[in-house]
Amino acid sequence: MKAGSINISVLGSTGSIGTQTLEVVDQFKDSIKVVGLAAGGNVNLIKNQIEKYKPKIVSVAEEKTAGLLRKSKKLGSTKVSFGDEGNCAVAIINLADKVVIATPGLFGIKPTLLAIKNKKTIALATKEVLVAAGELIVSEARKHKVDLLPIDSEHSAIFQCIAGRSADEVKRVILTCSGGPFRGMKPKQLKKITPAQALAHPTWKMGQKITIDSATLMNKGFEVIEAMWLFGVPLSKIEVVVHPQSIIHSAVEFVDGSIIAQMGASDMRLPIQYALFYPGKRLGNKFRRFSFTDGKGLSFEEPDRKTFRCLDLAFKAIGEGKTAPAILTAANDVAVEAFIAGRLSFLRIADVVEATLNAHTPKKYSNLEQILVVDGWARDKAAQFVVKFGR
Amino acid sequence: MKAGSINISVLGSTGSIGTQTLEVVDQFKDSIKVVGLAAGGNVNLIKNQIEKYKPKIVSVAEEKTAGLLRKSKKLGSTKVSFGDEGNCAVAIINLADKVVIATPGLFGIKPTLLAIKNKKTIALATKEVLVAAGELIVSEARKHKVDLLPIDSEHSAIFQCIAGRSADEVKRVILTCSGGPFRGMKPKQLKKITPAQALAHPTWKMGQKITIDSATLMNKGFEVIEAMWLFGVPLSKIEVVVHPQSIIHSAVEFVDGSIIAQMGASDMRLPIQYALFYPGKRLGNKFRRFSFTDGKGLSFEEPDRKTFRCLDLAFKAIGEGKTAPAILTAANDVAVEAFIAGRLSFLRIADVVEATLNAHTPKKYSNLEQILVVDGWARDKAAQFVVKFGR
Repeated sequence: MKAGSINISVLGSTGSIGTQTLEVVDQFKDSIKVVGLAAGGNVNLIKNQIEKYKPKIVSVAEEKTAGLLRKSKKLGSTKVSFGDEGNCAVAIINLADKVVIATPGLFGIKPTLLAIKNKKTIALATKEVLVAAGELIVSEARKHKVDLLPIDSEHSAIFQCIAGRSADEVKRVILTCSGGPFRGMKPKQLKKITPAQALAHPTWKMGQKITIDSATLMNKGFEVIEAMWLFGVPLSKIEVVVHPQSIIHSAVEFVDGSIIAQMGASDMRLPIQYALFYPGKRLGNKFRRFSFTDGKGLSFEEPDRKTFRCLDLAFKAIGEGKTAPAILTAANDVAVEAFIAGRLSFLRIADVVEATLNAHTPKKYSNLEQILVVDGWARDKAAQFVVKFGR
Repeated sequence: MKAGSINISVLGSTGSIGTQTLEVVDQFKDSIKVVGLAAGGNVNLIKNQIEKYKPKIVSVAEEKTAGLLRKSKKLGSTKVSFGDEGNCAVAIINLADKVVIATPGLFGIKPTLLAIKNKKTIALATKEVLVAAGELIVSEARKHKVDLLPIDSEHSAIFQCIAGRSADEVKRVILTCSGGPFRGMKPKQLKKITPAQALAHPTWKMGQKITIDSATLMNKGFEVIEAMWLFGVPLSKIEVVVHPQSIIHSAVEFVDGSIIAQMGASDMRLPIQYALFYPGKRLGNKFRRFSFTDGKGLSFEEPDRKTFRCLDLAFKAIGEGKTAPAILTAANDVAVEAFIAGRLSFLRIADVVEATLNAHTPKKYSNLEQILVVDGWARDKAAQFVVKFGR
């Protein structure tokens, strides 16, 4: 390994962000070494990743899958672990400088907290970690003087635009939003949207759950909450602007009126690379490029908050604070799952989330266990509302 | 004066940039003190400026004007000087930390060089200083470890976008251009353009000469040359993109594919403020604001280099280097003056500049005197071509 190289662990290595993270690694083999990988149950893919990256440790969800891996000829000297414990072991492996958190959902919280305690720089992709437990994560990161680097296009954009300036210089964060596949539609048209239609997102390569969240604008609501925690800006300073071309990935207006925007092709590997090398130099790569003179103009409009109600539900949840955002993400999980399974209509996703939020009294929390209790409660409650509002 | 305040001299204080600089001062009276002012012959305005800002020293173009000022009741303890010597005295006054160079044309070069030698930070508005004498100015600034801060929207934008990153991280500088009032027109339509039509620039508040230069795209050519000197980027890395809305003031593409753009309302006071306070914090002001959801989209196109030939003439001049850019600006001065006076048609401006450039063999130079000799030669030569190509 050459001097100045970076050792990373990747949690969620077989998912969309995980595989794209490894694509970035492939372009910078001499600079980035993968020392740990954690995945779910995709045995074939994790086998290939082990063979290719030769990590010191690997973890999968189930003991059974771990058993299969241990018999693999591709294993070499990689240690195999599993479950929550395995996931956490990958997050805190001594060799890792940075830990990429791309584990789906709340499973990302525990390894994130442990990685922070172990002074690992966090490159964070999993939205739920900050949405459900932002207060806890940020206070731990501050306590241990650990950087929380965003891995998604919007927050990476904001991070690049702020470029080290202080929070009191920021007038507004302008979070752009493609508007989703149903931009411009009214409730009447959205009533009969099928999961297949909602899953056909035009711009970004990403997983099913986040694709639906993009269609409902809940994803943008989550991003508002993340932006608050990542950049320490109050809700009143965050503006969501619909920008269908997804070229400006977000922008920051400073108090002097100057707006700095980050733009580029829609390629998640760019913010991943930025986080992996931060605070190092920008390096050349083979990703797609944006050209101003491609003929596409850039347009902007206000989000339709009346039709896409999830956006305001997110504002409501973070406005209430405490455990309310955890309720938001849990109820949304259940509602989206029900929608994908055909048990709930598109417009009813917001109804389930709203009803669950309304059924909850936000409480202070100070540890992960409290979040998990609230999460469990919200999932049960949301499931009841799915039945009530379902087809 | 409170701690942390900045003392400035303003050269060209009665011109467009000069008066806007003083408008910025008006908004930050406690932080910026005007210690020197230099102007041309606008006695009434300079009198008012003296009364308002009480500078230590003031200079005007003519001895006669200085005499009038000395008799003014508004003078107070301000010392009055005149001519080249007076201009330079204002540039090097001990009290000044920063010198705003907004003196028209080559008159800006000498005081800039002297201010650099006296370790003053330069806030540079006068294009000709870098276009005609960029090599000299930049080498002197480097030698004396003096910052050259741009005062115009495009270079301030680029400066804000680079934000301290190193030149090897820059892939391309994207210099935006409104396209001028005649964007989209072909030579046939441009043949009969009158000075009045050309002087009606839609976006920026600025002087006559630069308004014509905006219409011919020569101004953008000058800015390409300035960008090379200010940011140390080669010509091959500078791309001119027409952006009629003038909201993105310029952008930088980095080697990783990320594009950082600076945007805002078209208000010169913003880049002036940025230069005056740099490297200090951004501060709130009362200038105009840009809002993404105003309904205007942003569009981009390639410049029409065949019709607006001045742009390529600037590329040609800086490509040849040495004294060629000095020829470019001198010949353009003469041609534009002739156009405004009705002695030359709009399309013939490029012809005069091209003919003058072609009549010249670029020579190395190492001091201002050599530039002035070349400048004089080019003005005589261009005047001959004005007669030849004139109406």
